[in-house]
Amino acid sequence: MTDRSTAALPDTATDAPQDAEHERWVAVADEVATRLASDVVERDRAGAAPHAEVQLLRGAGLLPLLTPARSGGHGASWFTAFEVVSRIARVDTSIGHVLGYHYLHSWRTRLSRRADVVERLDAGTAEHHWLWGGAGNPRDAGLELVPTEGGYRVHGKKFFATGAEVSDRVIASGTDTATGQKYGFALPTHTDGVVHGGDWDSLGQRVSASGSIGFEGAFLAEEDILGPGEQTDPDAPAYPSLSALGFQVLLALLAVSTAEGALRFGAEYTRTKSRPWATSGVSSAADDPLVRARYGELASQVRAARALTDRAAQAWVAAAGRGWELTHTERGEVSVELSAVKVVTTQAALDATQGVFELTGARATKSGTGLDRFWRDVRTLTLHDPVSYKATEVGDHLLRGAYPEPSGYS
Amino acid sequence: MTDRSTAALPDTATDAPQDAEHERWVAVADEVATRLASDVVERDRAGAAPHAEVQLLRGAGLLPLLTPARSGGHGASWFTAFEVVSRIARVDTSIGHVLGYHYLHSWRTRLSRRADVVERLDAGTAEHHWLWGGAGNPRDAGLELVPTEGGYRVHGKKFFATGAEVSDRVIASGTDTATGQKYGFALPTHTDGVVHGGDWDSLGQRVSASGSIGFEGAFLAEEDILGPGEQTDPDAPAYPSLSALGFQVLLALLAVSTAEGALRFGAEYTRTKSRPWATSGVSSAADDPLVRARYGELASQVRAARALTDRAAQAWVAAAGRGWELTHTERGEVSVELSAVKVVTTQAALDATQGVFELTGARATKSGTGLDRFWRDVRTLTLHDPVSYKATEVGDHLLRGAYPEPSGYS
Amino acid sequence: MTDRSTAALPDTATDAPQDAEHERWVAVADEVATRLASDVVERDRAGAAPHAEVQLLRGAGLLPLLTPARSGGHGASWFTAFEVVSRIARVDTSIGHVLGYHYLHSWRTRLSRRADVVERLDAGTAEHHWLWGGAGNPRDAGLELVPTEGGYRVHGKKFFATGAEVSDRVIASGTDTATGQKYGFALPTHTDGVVHGGDWDSLGQRVSASGSIGFEGAFLAEEDILGPGEQTDPDAPAYPSLSALGFQVLLALLAVSTAEGALRFGAEYTRTKSRPWATSGVSSAADDPLVRARYGELASQVRAARALTDRAAQAWVAAAGRGWELTHTERGEVSVELSAVKVVTTQAALDATQGVFELTGARATKSGTGLDRFWRDVRTLTLHDPVSYKATEVGDHLLRGAYPEPSGYS
Amino acid sequence: MTDRSTAALPDTATDAPQDAEHERWVAVADEVATRLASDVVERDRAGAAPHAEVQLLRGAGLLPLLTPARSGGHGASWFTAFEVVSRIARVDTSIGHVLGYHYLHSWRTRLSRRADVVERLDAGTAEHHWLWGGAGNPRDAGLELVPTEGGYRVHGKKFFATGAEVSDRVIASGTDTATGQKYGFALPTHTDGVVHGGDWDSLGQRVSASGSIGFEGAFLAEEDILGPGEQTDPDAPAYPSLSALGFQVLLALLAVSTAEGALRFGAEYTRTKSRPWATSGVSSAADDPLVRARYGELASQVRAARALTDRAAQAWVAAAGRGWELTHTERGEVSVELSAVKVVTTQAALDATQGVFELTGARATKSGTGLDRFWRDVRTLTLHDPVSYKATEVGDHLLRGAYPEPSGYS
Repeated sequence: MTDRSTAALPDTATDAPQDAEHERWVAVADEVATRLASDVVERDRAGAAPHAEVQLLRGAGLLPLLTPARSGGHGASWFTAFEVVSRIARVDTSIGHVLGYHYLHSWRTRLSRRADVVERLDAGTAEHHWLWGGAGNPRDAGLELVPTEGGYRVHGKKFFATGAEVSDRVIASGTDTATGQKYGFALPTHTDGVVHGGDWDSLGQRVSASGSIGFEGAFLAEEDILGPGEQTDPDAPAYPSLSALGFQVLLALLAVSTAEGALRFGAEYTRTKSRPWATSGVSSAADDPLVRARYGELASQVRAARALTDRAAQAWVAAAGRGWELTHTERGEVSVELSAVKVVTTQAALDATQGVFELTGARATKSGTGLDRFWRDVRTLTLHDPVSYKATEVGDHLLRGAYPEPSGYS
Repeated sequence: MTDRSTAALPDTATDAPQDAEHERWVAVADEVATRLASDVVERDRAGAAPHAEVQLLRGAGLLPLLTPARSGGHGASWFTAFEVVSRIARVDTSIGHVLGYHYLHSWRTRLSRRADVVERLDAGTAEHHWLWGGAGNPRDAGLELVPTEGGYRVHGKKFFATGAEVSDRVIASGTDTATGQKYGFALPTHTDGVVHGGDWDSLGQRVSASGSIGFEGAFLAEEDILGPGEQTDPDAPAYPSLSALGFQVLLALLAVSTAEGALRFGAEYTRTKSRPWATSGVSSAADDPLVRARYGELASQVRAARALTDRAAQAWVAAAGRGWELTHTERGEVSVELSAVKVVTTQAALDATQGVFELTGARATKSGTGLDRFWRDVRTLTLHDPVSYKATEVGDHLLRGAYPEPSGYS
Repeated sequence: MTDRSTAALPDTATDAPQDAEHERWVAVADEVATRLASDVVERDRAGAAPHAEVQLLRGAGLLPLLTPARSGGHGASWFTAFEVVSRIARVDTSIGHVLGYHYLHSWRTRLSRRADVVERLDAGTAEHHWLWGGAGNPRDAGLELVPTEGGYRVHGKKFFATGAEVSDRVIASGTDTATGQKYGFALPTHTDGVVHGGDWDSLGQRVSASGSIGFEGAFLAEEDILGPGEQTDPDAPAYPSLSALGFQVLLALLAVSTAEGALRFGAEYTRTKSRPWATSGVSSAADDPLVRARYGELASQVRAARALTDRAAQAWVAAAGRGWELTHTERGEVSVELSAVKVVTTQAALDATQGVFELTGARATKSGTGLDRFWRDVRTLTLHDPVSYKATEVGDHLLRGAYPEPSGYS
Repeated sequence: MTDRSTAALPDTATDAPQDAEHERWVAVADEVATRLASDVVERDRAGAAPHAEVQLLRGAGLLPLLTPARSGGHGASWFTAFEVVSRIARVDTSIGHVLGYHYLHSWRTRLSRRADVVERLDAGTAEHHWLWGGAGNPRDAGLELVPTEGGYRVHGKKFFATGAEVSDRVIASGTDTATGQKYGFALPTHTDGVVHGGDWDSLGQRVSASGSIGFEGAFLAEEDILGPGEQTDPDAPAYPSLSALGFQVLLALLAVSTAEGALRFGAEYTRTKSRPWATSGVSSAADDPLVRARYGELASQVRAARALTDRAAQAWVAAAGRGWELTHTERGEVSVELSAVKVVTTQAALDATQGVFELTGARATKSGTGLDRFWRDVRTLTLHDPVSYKATEVGDHLLRGAYPEPSGYS
């Protein structure tokens, strides 16, 4: 892929800090992306858990990117992290997904009020380059914590746990079966009683290790308890419930980055491989007026989706910066903006990844070309939670000034 | 309009400076907007030139808003000007149009290298609260400048000259019939030999005084010549050609603000006047799941269009700040971004202003309701130049890294 | 309008009987349409009740078109009537509306089991060339019939009664205040106690005389009672409830015909008046690849909407032909098909009438051009009842095999 | 699949002859479809050439369906053939494709003026239940016929030849290298010098055996020459060029039938497997208002596409019935209608097969569910030739009354 074909999509998130550290990490991400691009079609087809890919991220130093410098991490900003995820997602959405979730899971530990636990975990991430996964799919039943000597035995199952299988630590929450109290906790991923289903086999996001994780009496030490679990009742502080919105930021960023990737890939294909149509009157497909205009329509829509995603990401970062001072109204503004983001990124990403085929022509459907994975990844990703209910939330805000009810999705 | 119904659309341009002066002018704009809203339906129907409306803007002090403080103006930023235009356009797109073009025409004089002329004109704007219009429609033949004692006699006609009829000064350009040299110049609007057609009678933007202006030997004094006219050849400096892009920023801002206005107006109507459908199972139209979701879809699309417009407006302002240092590449980036803006704002604004009727119900088509003017204004505005060629420009950039050829539109 | 510009839209409803009588009436309709086209823009702007237009229809012999030959009418088929309505609606949707409703109101009398009344009314229509209107808007309160010597006094008001003001007879229904029995009846339109509001002033359908009709003690003679009013309970026969579906056929036909008219008008304008865009590289707007393709997209969508409308119209005519034998299942099939028709005709007609402006260019927004009336008419017409609930009905059928609940709309 | 879930889509092509023979073959097709549905997901994944599937068609007697009774075939009508293809394509688009092309290839022999050859081939099809394929992809170089004793040696390659690999006879055309004369001919598929690439491995239509066919000196006997090849020059008769349009009918029918299949499959899934969303307030996903309305929108769009496809198919059959009397104008009408069909079927089928996922929820992306193959098949099929140029043809007809230039696609 040449510079020339990438021009229509902005190279960095608008308004992102443009300092040298940021630029350095973006360059690292681009390098990783280039390596991932070289065999992404084969890896997508195989659909195996991304052990080697995670090693690539680890080797590039990307795992402790967000970890505070005081704990030995790189102390980069969320803007840098988002841009790194976006660069990688443009060529390999699965690995962008695993990395983005890693950043969020690792950040979520800091929502704990137990500073010592947080610091210990951060130090571990910095020192051992841990990859974090999560076991928190809200649509499954909650985990159970059975009290035992020095902690708990964890029981239960989450059917979708992106990245958990290839991670070093998972963050989860469960309920003390004796007291009914809910706790958040962190756990080594590969320990007795933690079972990875290896059962992810889907249309898209095939390399994201999004299969099930089971807890069959795994030991949870008291020192790994992060504190009371996230609450969603109106009187609870707004800050912890910000993590659900972080997933929405990431999912939107993955979708729109994938669309950007599809358009770049498609434009390169059109420019170098497509044949002009017989009645087009031009000698190169890239000169066809209908092709040029249609690429522009798709790219414009993606640019708008990206601009709104970036604006929402900034709002989320600002909200996160407010910490425990964050009000429910402030959180509500971010939430409704993210609901709008989901509506437009879903549409733009589907339109772009489906529509690009009309601009490359029939031969690009050939297995091995790899143009189809963009649509398959977007179609899979954007079903995480129903876009129609996001639209409803935006509508309720317009009609009644209401904010989305905090939940695992809003 | 209540606070509650306005919630889903951000109250200020993202990233706008939030200082006290900005807030003060936004409040002034809101006050003006409230007064304009009170009889906008009647004024739209009459379609007369907005003399009284311009007096309202003048009385509120909005005309020298952008004029440098050193010349006696308010010295506000473009961000403030854009926000003022947007607030007004949400209720009266025509007046937002006249005001926005005024800012741009007045600013364009500063592209002149004749500092003394610029300063004298700025001082006039500050002191007399001049409204600026323009006579520059690129699709009409150029004006002719016939040399005479102390200046020129101007001849020619421009068929569309928004605001000129109600302005105090017009900016224009013409060609010296003796030398072939092109000059930009400023002229008092109401002077011998300047004829206002009063011939604007269109589907929308009915109060924008967008009719023709004719020059039948009007005298142009040498001291009112701004300098050589804007050039579009590749070797010409990029800076002056930035004004064509300024119109694109404004047109997009008007379209998206009108869409915001339509959604607010519609939501208020639905909430207070619409009857729930018989088979909806709800007692209020605003509780109808299909109404809520559809409002959300339209509002999300408009939010994305606004986010991209704001991003492009920031880029344009930054480019303007570069002055004569501006490179063609930098200009090109702004131009292609604005082409994308046109694509998405056109679609979003048409969808919102057309679609809102389905959410208010049939009675809102009644004359006097005023819901139709939003669509009529958007449909008229967005035809300024063809959106399909904007898409083509975005496509060419994606395919070949090309920038739009500088012109009166790109 | 020349033959050449009309080519892409089929000239007759597919599968319509192509006999000589049909052809003769289509030619009559075309002649009427030509006369209506000559001043449609002015009449639309004036928005007066169409007395002269009805005289034109009457003079052409179109009013008793559907009236059985045995009663002195022309005895044409519904296919001919639909085609006549469509031809007229392509140039003047309001008059198409008045005429189409006339056919349906007049036909509705035949749902009565009182053959003598039906025959007398048919004979009147044939002899006096009566125009029929209706006073049946289901969203208003029902009319009251107060028993009096030899009949009833009618009281009540219907806020929307297309065509009633210019009609000779209205069909309506009301409830006997003494017995609670509901009756359908016919009434001379211009008689004591019938008050026409003349209060129709809307965005579109401005010449359709769709204002209110009030009954202030008008006398209803026993002999004008058609029989028990239409029932919608499950045990009632399906046949009479077919009239609600007839309105849906007509509304869809009007919308799609208006779209056809807009595309023809637009194509003619583009071919003869539009200027090619500067960067298009062609010398005529009709040669612009982006214009050609976009016209084709809009025309294709309209063709599909028309094909489904024709298929549904055929199904409705077949159902009507079943008379009292018609089952609820048979009616349900027609109803769900018509719900689909509403979904696609609404979208196609809005897209075409809004989108055509992009193909004619900005000057076509000028008042007097008359391109805007197509959108205004479609936007007004298609709000008759909410398209979202039609979609719901189609969805329920797909999901559960359900048929729409018979009502005034389905 | 139950009756209940299939209700919203008409069970037979409108206006198809409803005689007993037709019904019998439709029942046969349904039986075949049921068997194909049982392992379609596995077969799609394997992507092997459909030898067993063709045996299933053969065993059911479907191969000589269209073959004239006088030659020993079933003598069914094209309406029956189209309906059979549609029934099968709803569950297995690949096999529908192979069967539909078989009908067309076999019918194309009859465009020959050599009645004896036609009759012999028809008799062979009837007796041996031959499957016909073709080697005619217009975008590849033409085949060469090198004169030899008693006929020719055929040389050349076609890169896409749906069904050829599993067929018994192929129809093709080539040019006599000595005289430059073009001939159509039929050839046994499995004979010396015919090489099947087995190289079809694509996103969709994976079981359609659409790989390459090579001719490396295969012997073509003089008696297998059908006559001069199809000509597209203006003076050539219109009739033979009708076969290109036949492919367009079939491709559209396959696309729209696949969309029908996807909606049925999806509706069944939603009704029986999807979980209602947490904030939906309903206890079954099929009761969710947003799900119901969205299914209805998609199904309505597909109904319209189907109605236009059926109308065009009827027009094509009527044109075919005209034989050598067919005029270029008559052909042109069919061609432009089919261009419109391509535009609307492409959009409707993509929207339905992509959108249905939002109504089934995320779990339906799981491999093994089989919901994705509908989109993959449609996306692949509809790229056969570019939809944008079909739109252009419809636009040219609207603007200038032009008909598409006869070619391999129009």
